[in-house]
Amino acid sequence: MESISSSRSFAGIQGAYSHASTVTGTDMSFAVYVPDHEAGAKMPVLWFLSGLTCTHANVMEKGEYRRLASELGLVVVAPDTSPRGEGVPDDSSYDLGQGAGFYVDATEEPWADHFQMRSYIEEELPALIAEQFPVDMSRQGIFGHSMGGHGALTMALRNPDRFKSASAFAPIVAPSDCPWGKKALGRYLGENKAVWRDYDACALIEDGARFPEFLVDQGAADNFMEEQLKPHLLAEICEKASIPLTLNLRDGFDHSYYFISTFMDDHLRWHAARL
Amino acid sequence: MESISSSRSFAGIQGAYSHASTVTGTDMSFAVYVPDHEAGAKMPVLWFLSGLTCTHANVMEKGEYRRLASELGLVVVAPDTSPRGEGVPDDSSYDLGQGAGFYVDATEEPWADHFQMRSYIEEELPALIAEQFPVDMSRQGIFGHSMGGHGALTMALRNPDRFKSASAFAPIVAPSDCPWGKKALGRYLGENKAVWRDYDACALIEDGARFPEFLVDQGAADNFMEEQLKPHLLAEICEKASIPLTLNLRDGFDHSYYFISTFMDDHLRWHAARL
Repeated sequence: MESISSSRSFAGIQGAYSHASTVTGTDMSFAVYVPDHEAGAKMPVLWFLSGLTCTHANVMEKGEYRRLASELGLVVVAPDTSPRGEGVPDDSSYDLGQGAGFYVDATEEPWADHFQMRSYIEEELPALIAEQFPVDMSRQGIFGHSMGGHGALTMALRNPDRFKSASAFAPIVAPSDCPWGKKALGRYLGENKAVWRDYDACALIEDGARFPEFLVDQGAADNFMEEQLKPHLLAEICEKASIPLTLNLRDGFDHSYYFISTFMDDHLRWHAARL
Repeated sequence: MESISSSRSFAGIQGAYSHASTVTGTDMSFAVYVPDHEAGAKMPVLWFLSGLTCTHANVMEKGEYRRLASELGLVVVAPDTSPRGEGVPDDSSYDLGQGAGFYVDATEEPWADHFQMRSYIEEELPALIAEQFPVDMSRQGIFGHSMGGHGALTMALRNPDRFKSASAFAPIVAPSDCPWGKKALGRYLGENKAVWRDYDACALIEDGARFPEFLVDQGAADNFMEEQLKPHLLAEICEKASIPLTLNLRDGFDHSYYFISTFMDDHLRWHAARL
């Protein structure tokens, strides 16, 4: 693991790092914020998964999480959204390829060699974080935005023993049922839609996956809500499955980091109370 | 004036705008955050001047000022740091030309035609802000970072009737006495150093300019402190001139927005108490 940058910020250190990933076969970057702590202390860790086009840097620069994370003693980890670099396949559109990994393990060519973001976030990166940072891996939460909200919800549903808390900002809740998701899952996983269900929060719940409760914030002025995000589908399936869902529709807010940063404190407190 | 973007953020609206500037002869961009307010209310306005390489967008994205500015009812205006675009002279180095206007009215070629940032910030943009936004122009404060800290201190000292409060993050306090300033002032204003004194906070104070008090935060791990920023020069001249200066040296902090955002709340409260 190599340091890309390290800056004191509020009562802690914001770092960015790079390491050679075995599962993606590339160098991968990620950000970690570590609050000040007693020597030997181990803190709960909160994973933030970012949306389309983002790297680890977007939430690091615009997320406004450090003031409260340092007060609450939360380590915040922000991975990249895909493998990148020369030799890694890409697509000219913003919603496929580099910057658009969709947190799946791709099985189709040309993606399968590198686009293994599920295994990367579920297995390889946690092992590195556990080894290198002062974290208590028995206290993990996960959240994310848009494509990363999809990632957070699906990872939580598949790993209820690992994560004690999960929330999302404007998540894609049913990728099998929206243009972004159909395109990406089709290209990464092929056209057998049974395989997609493991990567679709609504389908996972329909198939029996459970999680204690979710918090979702959604901007009411978000241009992607109707066609891509469809929060009502999550509300419906959570109600059927008796999963408590706090779904806040926020008047006037769009899909940007101006929305995320506004409700960041609420999400940090939600996680801290459950970790 | 045209809208570039507008997003709800905390209890207010973050906008970015463009207009055709007469004094620079170019389109100029700027950001304005307007807290929610009663119809007809007019709020105090706080000017943030940015540093080398920045546009209006850097502090808008990374400054973390909206949560508290909305609570305090402060309109925050962030201008660009120079004219830009085709036909505007530039230099291949980051510390001269576009992104490096140094808040001066240039007199030398090729800069004089467009690089009129002093007149732009002191005259043209305030008139537009007064006309277009719900602001009380009898309650103005100014702050900034690095080159923009220099801008804030010098504008305050030259205009003590306009500004009721002034502060800075890691400002250049004596451009006549550091490499960045010598290069820029020499190229924009020529080599007659008597002319530079109007654009040098320490020289202005030495020449008799006064301001009620200043707040300055400076990261102790800032790589530019010794050679470029030299906060001790401001401390010395303020002491001689009996200008109260609160100079906070912050252990471990560098020159980045991670430093600025950490102490943003302190500066907003400082200004709000004086506006």
